[in-house]
Amino acid sequence: MCELLGMSANVPTDICFSFTGLVQRGGRTGPHSDGWGISLYEGRGSRSFHDPRPSVASEIAELIQRYAIKSKIIISHIRKANRGKICLENTHPFTRELWSCSWVFAHNGQLNGIKIKRLKFYQPIGTTDSEHAFCWMLDQIRKKYPKRPANSQQLWRYIHKLAEEVSKLGVFSFLMSDSYYLYVYCTNNMCWITRRHPFGKARLIDTGEIVDFRKLTTPKDIVTIVTSRALTDNEEWHHMKKGEFVVFKDGKQQKIKLN
Amino acid sequence: MCELLGMSANVPTDICFSFTGLVQRGGRTGPHSDGWGISLYEGRGSRSFHDPRPSVASEIAELIQRYAIKSKIIISHIRKANRGKICLENTHPFTRELWSCSWVFAHNGQLNGIKIKRLKFYQPIGTTDSEHAFCWMLDQIRKKYPKRPANSQQLWRYIHKLAEEVSKLGVFSFLMSDSYYLYVYCTNNMCWITRRHPFGKARLIDTGEIVDFRKLTTPKDIVTIVTSRALTDNEEWHHMKKGEFVVFKDGKQQKIKLN
Repeated sequence: MCELLGMSANVPTDICFSFTGLVQRGGRTGPHSDGWGISLYEGRGSRSFHDPRPSVASEIAELIQRYAIKSKIIISHIRKANRGKICLENTHPFTRELWSCSWVFAHNGQLNGIKIKRLKFYQPIGTTDSEHAFCWMLDQIRKKYPKRPANSQQLWRYIHKLAEEVSKLGVFSFLMSDSYYLYVYCTNNMCWITRRHPFGKARLIDTGEIVDFRKLTTPKDIVTIVTSRALTDNEEWHHMKKGEFVVFKDGKQQKIKLN
Repeated sequence: MCELLGMSANVPTDICFSFTGLVQRGGRTGPHSDGWGISLYEGRGSRSFHDPRPSVASEIAELIQRYAIKSKIIISHIRKANRGKICLENTHPFTRELWSCSWVFAHNGQLNGIKIKRLKFYQPIGTTDSEHAFCWMLDQIRKKYPKRPANSQQLWRYIHKLAEEVSKLGVFSFLMSDSYYLYVYCTNNMCWITRRHPFGKARLIDTGEIVDFRKLTTPKDIVTIVTSRALTDNEEWHHMKKGEFVVFKDGKQQKIKLN
């Protein structure tokens, strides 16, 4: 299994504090030492940093913690390989273009038989079940919506439906973004927290480090962090249920209408 | 205009020396301070580092010089914006997937009217003429060859033909790779050098730094560096002609048959 970390915020925000917690699990406080990656959006573009080496020993991970790149949407992943060897092309997050948007995807879980699902437009570069599932979902979205639907609710419901179909094959907890929204689906082990005014202090489980968000934020800031396992032990995290699908924009959970 | 740097080698090789020369031109010895990027292949996968800030002042560029990631194919670019604002999505190299391969592209030049060429499968995320040209070439390749042709010569001739067509619109010097080959097309300002046994010393024009390749190589190594302007002043660079197309694999120039 792997661990996921995502962020949605209403102002460009760095993820240094949470990422510092996550990277510990890539070889020190956790066994996820088979590579890691992070994708950060700036406007419609995204940039990714990938390293097939353990995050806890990665110079690139160290740079991300220090350099504090600010973004409104971030997706990160640390890997414990179960399907697909340890190599760059199997390192999440995966990226593809659809509707002139950069789509980013990272997955925690195992899917049995996903590779039977035939692909048309998008093909995986590596050999993971995760990238195959991502390509299949984008294929379906592209087929149904050659252009981005004007009504986002339609798109959200369709992504939810696709996620449900893939999740029949196993564990399919994922983070995905199209540069506008952060999409979160949970089979197991997903939780999130929204931090907003009045901000307080938070303590990282993995390092004991304490940060006082009052010193780093303005009263208007809204920042949601999504992760596989809670990163702090003095805050209330929302634990997602099996089959739950959540969409965030600007740090705020979006209301998904049933039809 | 911009500057390009590419590498093709028969063993995983770092590009620290050449890259150090290039980044000086991103704000110190050259005016190309509107962002930079580098893509490095490892097997079929590639990873990219992008920064919309000047390379000479970039912490990420500093890491690339220090961290010495080894690769057999590298493409790098420093940008002087002429079309498209300075932002992440306009920062080369651009990446797309075709035939389960990661294709990477970086361009130097300006193309007038490229956006009239209609796109089907691949759409640009940013607003540069470069990314549009890349998407158009991949569209054409995909249309003609839904699967990778068994005969690489066919593909090379077709890429050459596409490059000639695009170059009618202006200056179209580019580096491109599909993870197997490094493709180089020249409208102007492209030169290359192949270093092999017996290796010697090289002196960087932009910093005066001298490296003794005898200490860093084995007699079997073959490394080709392609760039917009020669990086060293004590070696013989091959200056490409207008309309010339060259393909490299494992550091060696490939013979392109006319039909």
